[in-house]
Amino acid sequence: MKKIEVIQNVLEANETIASRNRQLLDEHKVFAINIMSSPGAGKTSLILQTLTRLKDRLNIAVIEGDVASTVDAEKVQSEAKAVVQINTGKMPESCSLMAAMIESALKDIPLDNMDLILIENVGNLICPAEFNLGEHKRVVISSLPEGDDKPTKYPLIFIDADAVIINKMDFLPHVDFDIAAFRRSIAGLNPKAEIFELSCKTGEEIERWCSWVLEQVKANATKH
Amino acid sequence: MKKIEVIQNVLEANETIASRNRQLLDEHKVFAINIMSSPGAGKTSLILQTLTRLKDRLNIAVIEGDVASTVDAEKVQSEAKAVVQINTGKMPESCSLMAAMIESALKDIPLDNMDLILIENVGNLICPAEFNLGEHKRVVISSLPEGDDKPTKYPLIFIDADAVIINKMDFLPHVDFDIAAFRRSIAGLNPKAEIFELSCKTGEEIERWCSWVLEQVKANATKH
Repeated sequence: MKKIEVIQNVLEANETIASRNRQLLDEHKVFAINIMSSPGAGKTSLILQTLTRLKDRLNIAVIEGDVASTVDAEKVQSEAKAVVQINTGKMPESCSLMAAMIESALKDIPLDNMDLILIENVGNLICPAEFNLGEHKRVVISSLPEGDDKPTKYPLIFIDADAVIINKMDFLPHVDFDIAAFRRSIAGLNPKAEIFELSCKTGEEIERWCSWVLEQVKANATKH
Repeated sequence: MKKIEVIQNVLEANETIASRNRQLLDEHKVFAINIMSSPGAGKTSLILQTLTRLKDRLNIAVIEGDVASTVDAEKVQSEAKAVVQINTGKMPESCSLMAAMIESALKDIPLDNMDLILIENVGNLICPAEFNLGEHKRVVISSLPEGDDKPTKYPLIFIDADAVIINKMDFLPHVDFDIAAFRRSIAGLNPKAEIFELSCKTGEEIERWCSWVLEQVKANATKH
């Protein structure tokens, strides 16, 4: 079927560019994290919290992916060393960041002066699972108001995640979310994923998340 | 560019099948509503509330779209006259219901005995905007915990909506969501959209929503 073949080609071409991105990042000893979630689960809030806590210890750039608008880039502008906005626009590119977009964004970031790039993907639990960007770690955020069945309904994105963040823990008294059931689903799909139960609003477990990020950056720096 | 052309062909083929679906629905005097939102915004809850309130007045079928799992279909099974599950699976079809999937689902629904089909799309604010299913009305749900900037960030899906539902109104004391700003964004994109501020949990404004649905079904029935 022609359509399937073309999509296959798109995915293969994406892998090639993703490898180039990874090589470029490694040459410059820059660590990259791809942050994915549903719309409104807290990607920008997590990036802001991470910038606030780590900006004195690491030089951090942010790549903001969005279908339209620059509202998130504006929010992180004052805290990041560099910010690049990508607007994905219309189909077929609209539903996820792709490696070619990152390749282009990396040209606008002074890589020699950076330690970490936080990539905010488009708000979507489906397409971003399929597009490798060349990042070192993949993080998925699930927020309490979305419900505990998201790993069951959108398994692919959770299977490939290095870390899963349960955000908006401050909503626990107001929602019917079974943390143990959610953890069991993740354990079934991806037992190696690191899990954080945090709140970008109250700061709960943000320290542990930032320590994890710092460890990953350091471990990668000693490798190259 | 080859890729763009193929996607263009996919969208055109989709339109053709969507027109056939619409014709079939009209021949049988069945009204169809396409319900779209982010993951966890409340599509299934809205369908359940609608079934509970309208099942004695209308014969209602549900088409459940999901990447994986049948959890939503199981939830509505006891209340609907017929339920068809569609699992969209892997790319390229995974990120939205498409007209061909609905065409196939309609074969499993006794259309002569139905008044209304509620179609639950895949949880995604991007792809479903581009695929006409042959439905009569398009509804987008936005929930308070997602934030009030969703129309600015995902405009296309709101531009084409006949109704926009602000769900989880019971969260108002716990979130920083500016209803007036959200309404202004919708007015800018799509001034004709009907707006509902409701809560599937408390039942707030569910009556008004169900009255609107009933009106649409009746208006369509007198037309054909």
